[in-house]
Amino acid sequence: MRWLLPEAIEDILPLEAGRVEMLRRGLLDEFSRHGYQYVIPPLLEYVESLLTGSGRDLDLRTFKLVDQASGRAMGIRADITPQVARIDAHLLNRRGVTRLCYSGSVLHTLPAGFHATREPLQIGAELYGHAGLEADIEIIRLLARSLGLADLAASRIDLGHVGLFRALAAEAGLSGSVEEDAFIALQAKDLPSLRQILANAVPGQAKDGLLALAELYGGPEVLARARQVLPPIVAPQLDELQCLADALADLPVSFDLADLRGYHYHNGVVFAAYCQGSPVALALGGRYDKAGAAYGRARPATGFSMDLRELVRLGSKSVGAGAILAPWPGADAVGRALQTRVDSLRAAGETVVVALPGHEGNWTETGCDRQLRERDGQWIIEVLKETGNG
Amino acid sequence: MRWLLPEAIEDILPLEAGRVEMLRRGLLDEFSRHGYQYVIPPLLEYVESLLTGSGRDLDLRTFKLVDQASGRAMGIRADITPQVARIDAHLLNRRGVTRLCYSGSVLHTLPAGFHATREPLQIGAELYGHAGLEADIEIIRLLARSLGLADLAASRIDLGHVGLFRALAAEAGLSGSVEEDAFIALQAKDLPSLRQILANAVPGQAKDGLLALAELYGGPEVLARARQVLPPIVAPQLDELQCLADALADLPVSFDLADLRGYHYHNGVVFAAYCQGSPVALALGGRYDKAGAAYGRARPATGFSMDLRELVRLGSKSVGAGAILAPWPGADAVGRALQTRVDSLRAAGETVVVALPGHEGNWTETGCDRQLRERDGQWIIEVLKETGNG
Repeated sequence: MRWLLPEAIEDILPLEAGRVEMLRRGLLDEFSRHGYQYVIPPLLEYVESLLTGSGRDLDLRTFKLVDQASGRAMGIRADITPQVARIDAHLLNRRGVTRLCYSGSVLHTLPAGFHATREPLQIGAELYGHAGLEADIEIIRLLARSLGLADLAASRIDLGHVGLFRALAAEAGLSGSVEEDAFIALQAKDLPSLRQILANAVPGQAKDGLLALAELYGGPEVLARARQVLPPIVAPQLDELQCLADALADLPVSFDLADLRGYHYHNGVVFAAYCQGSPVALALGGRYDKAGAAYGRARPATGFSMDLRELVRLGSKSVGAGAILAPWPGADAVGRALQTRVDSLRAAGETVVVALPGHEGNWTETGCDRQLRERDGQWIIEVLKETGNG
Repeated sequence: MRWLLPEAIEDILPLEAGRVEMLRRGLLDEFSRHGYQYVIPPLLEYVESLLTGSGRDLDLRTFKLVDQASGRAMGIRADITPQVARIDAHLLNRRGVTRLCYSGSVLHTLPAGFHATREPLQIGAELYGHAGLEADIEIIRLLARSLGLADLAASRIDLGHVGLFRALAAEAGLSGSVEEDAFIALQAKDLPSLRQILANAVPGQAKDGLLALAELYGGPEVLARARQVLPPIVAPQLDELQCLADALADLPVSFDLADLRGYHYHNGVVFAAYCQGSPVALALGGRYDKAGAAYGRARPATGFSMDLRELVRLGSKSVGAGAILAPWPGADAVGRALQTRVDSLRAAGETVVVALPGHEGNWTETGCDRQLRERDGQWIIEVLKETGNG
């Protein structure tokens, strides 16, 4: 069984691969029309560069290798966003706003969930150098357009704010590993664990607020409820969420105030888009203003990313045009006329498959639905009948 | 220096990345118009699957990892061609001719040469199920067209034949590690080592022929010389080369009979395309009929691959159209009119960059050469002056 692939690793075969490629182009073109410039970060980097500013989660997901050239530890990227932040911080060195986009494979040591792949095809857009909500608005609108290009409508876009947790945790006296544990428990909405972790926290509104966060999800009423049950120190974060929701009133915005996002580099507004038929988020994003600082240059940052394979799996299943079968062109005048015809059909965008001599095959499995036939010295296109071939 | 990348590993920044993406699309579209279907094999596989049928060279170039899910050794692909052969052999299971193409990163533990990258962006096309020279002709023509799409003309396409070496080695009584050592010495045109390795070979025409191969490169006269100095047992291989050269007379075909190609899976005709200004081959290919057998299903196979990054580095340096700068649209009627204008410009393929409020930047670094300005309630496009921004 030499050809068996590792668990949660798959080939993408022609039909699906064609769809992935079409969607990839559609998304990169849409990003480009919004001014997002394409970059290609490498598959591997030194571990300390790859994991700078991120948490234990990303570390555990990252495959490690030894560099034969330097003896240092390298990692295969498990997430492209920190790489793009590094590019913004160091390579482009622009003072103003920088918009970047990317698309590529990432690898995970273990799948994120039961049906998850270990090789997501990550695609996304990131906006650097602007701290205002307008940047988040642009990014969330671009996310919604992206789902539209995949023939998916967002059934809801959940907004959250990592600043809520950080402010409440500081007020409740949490820090270090206790804050980290509380973060993980809240992210998992694991209230019993969260209560235990908070046993020694400073009693008061902030501690109660941390427990309340897990229940604060749903429609517009969530923000009103949050203002009642959370202490006034988080008013700025709630104001930001209200302002975003107002500006995006035409989108199906809802709230999940316990959504803290993995990987730990997010620090402000976060968002997750869901659509009918998928329990997992199709697009994840948010603010991560600290990532650049880890590379020595603090820059405001917001963006989102998606898995192309997942989008294709859930999106529409359109099939492209069929191909034309042509016989192998001989060296005579008729053959030269055929070659000219084949070249011009291809130049016009048609797929022309040449039947190699001596080959008998099932042409429909190669997608041929028409064929070139000679009639009185002319090469004409006719419908391909199942059994005939050149 | 957290942001330093490992040796021979680089980011591809916007200008170059845009060119890479355009060429990638152009090539995949050309392959598709010839009936080559796109597949996406995974970045990693079990080592025994990834290295099946290949030699020590590919093994040493392949990064190894341990699979946490199975405890087995996995490798990051250093070459996509064997993966595509596996897909043809097992997943598609077609009886007839199968044409496949692919594009993706591969990783090498050490760079192949002084200026080589450890992360080539491999792109290529493979044809399975046809043993005739017509398949090689189709593939070499597609290779030549591919170089044309990259705005590169092949200065020469060297033909060789691994069967020459194998037949002579068998006749001279070489096998196992001695044959392997002779292969490596001949590939490197290292005649002193080759003489030493052949010291115990059966004396005669075959042994002399092995030494002669290293000198058999150049124009059409090479085949005539080969017929004089090589024993008659290699006549079939020389006939194949002659036949190919005749069919491809319109291309700049030459010969290099010591070119054995790396990785050891090739077994017949091999070819390498060079262009002015590059000492390394821009495209490599050939026959590898045995690769499928290693996966349990023998299928004739021929194909070629190239490094997108290298093609872009040597090809033309055209620059795309500039972008249009637009102010942030307000919530009033003028703002709505602006948003409508922006949407329609983007739908027409233009890049429109929105200036986020409060942002002062150097717009030319984002590629803007025009801007949207309000004049009497109309949004018109005018030339962007260096200092002005929205």
